[in-house]
Amino acid sequence: MSPIENLIRELGKLPGVGAKTALRLAYHLVKGPKENVRRLARALDRVADRVHACPECGNYCDAELCSVCGDPSRDRKVICVVEEAYEVGAIERAGRYGGLFHVLGGRLSPLDGIGPDELAIAGLVRRLDGAGGRVREVILATNASVEGEATAVYLEGVLRPYPVRVTRLARGIPVGSDLEYIDGTTIAEALAGRREM
Amino acid sequence: MSPIENLIRELGKLPGVGAKTALRLAYHLVKGPKENVRRLARALDRVADRVHACPECGNYCDAELCSVCGDPSRDRKVICVVEEAYEVGAIERAGRYGGLFHVLGGRLSPLDGIGPDELAIAGLVRRLDGAGGRVREVILATNASVEGEATAVYLEGVLRPYPVRVTRLARGIPVGSDLEYIDGTTIAEALAGRREM
Repeated sequence: MSPIENLIRELGKLPGVGAKTALRLAYHLVKGPKENVRRLARALDRVADRVHACPECGNYCDAELCSVCGDPSRDRKVICVVEEAYEVGAIERAGRYGGLFHVLGGRLSPLDGIGPDELAIAGLVRRLDGAGGRVREVILATNASVEGEATAVYLEGVLRPYPVRVTRLARGIPVGSDLEYIDGTTIAEALAGRREM
Repeated sequence: MSPIENLIRELGKLPGVGAKTALRLAYHLVKGPKENVRRLARALDRVADRVHACPECGNYCDAELCSVCGDPSRDRKVICVVEEAYEVGAIERAGRYGGLFHVLGGRLSPLDGIGPDELAIAGLVRRLDGAGGRVREVILATNASVEGEATAVYLEGVLRPYPVRVTRLARGIPVGSDLEYIDGTTIAEALAGRREM
């Protein structure tokens, strides 16, 4: 296989990159300066060499602990549970959360063969045990999809024996959106969760 | 910058890859086996190390000449001019062309600063001069866009002093398509170019 065909095949393995996109990307790289190709290769090597899961929360990092777990100023009484590591960034960017995280690494999806053992649920339980009652609240920030919801319900059952408050992100109207474009289920949730002004 | 942020930045430089896609691709790579990340890095390095433009036609290759120019069975009397190297593959896959190629490396687009000197037009003229009248036909296979058409018209002027037949790919109805979805200009071209059955 020629180097270009080989690159097209490797690029085509990326999610959302079909045969035509892989071809276009490969020829874009071939046509451009070789430094750009090497810079991307080095970025990939650096990730392969240095990035690993944080032993505490499962977020990716290149230090011993991730930047959240390693930050002594974070509130260790709250753990926010997310499905994927990139969702940590979404919550961090919101700038309103000062606690810790726990990355499940997916969500319950029996049809895809993802059961509780495939997720970092045992690790979450270990953290609660290890903290010896210091954790006061676990926020379930799984996605608002059917699988995310099912994962939250399952986790609630797992956490019931622990003396922690288990909360869920509020459902409602996204900020900045028009009611006329919001589906009925969301409006029903927003009504049920309405607050005093 | 962390290795993941660095990878997101590099992936985001690819055409059609925005910030969200770069993030998704990077986390997909981080989450998967490290071998996959390294395999992609090696594929990139191999392209950077070994792929260069064929000195004859401008197509990309990793040998001294590209597979077409280096094939003694190809018909050296015909040169098919394409805009980009990946279009060579499209014509080769059709399986009906046995001549040589010439890759322009783009198309005339004055607004983007692409004039005749930015394209491999001098190289095409050199090939015709060097062949000493052996080339009988130049097929202009630039795209059927405004710029592709303008590039073909320009090339026709450049080639006029040479004793070669200059042809253009036929315009017409794409095989397998319904007339009702074809635009009027294409139907007009198909009518003008109609052939005896």
